Amino acid sequence: MTTVRIYVTYKQSVFDPQGEAITNSIHSLGHDEVKGVKVGKFFDVTIEDNDKPVAETVKEISEELLVNFNMETYSYKILEEK
Amino acid sequence: MTTVRIYVTYKQSVFDPQGEAITNSIHSLGHDEVKGVKVGKFFDVTIEDNDKPVAETVKEISEELLVNFNMETYSYKILEEK
Repeated sequence: MTTVRIYVTYKQSVFDPQGEAITNSIHSLGHDEVKGVKVGKFFDVTIEDNDKPVAETVKEISEELLVNFNMETYSYKILEEK
Repeated sequence: MTTVRIYVTYKQSVFDPQGEAITNSIHSLGHDEVKGVKVGKFFDVTIEDNDKPVAETVKEISEELLVNFNMETYSYKILEEK
């Protein structure tokens, strides 16, 4: 059993309104040392060992479901292998 | 300038409906090797060097804004120090 963490972030070219809003809120709390915030999401996916490589499962579920390639990009790392 | 990544996840005890829904969608795409999905979010926060330790800024903005401690927990790591 392998657990991978798939990180999904906005492409550099895409404006991140949520990050902007959070930065403004943080400043209103008096934390001017914070210069910027970017928001992302991640998926911890548990994959049962089988004949298909983990990388292939990650690629397929990212392309078929988890990532909107118009605006987002993804990377992943293996969290745990049991 | 330091960039930290703050991970926010549901507490173990909290049911993750979005993760369940994604797991079901993945299964309907034929990926039965996927046994479960948990969803989380992260914030990449750029902090200007100042007299306050980074850890203190992270703690304060997490407690004051980014994390709902009724349902969520957080951790962070330093991505970059320039």
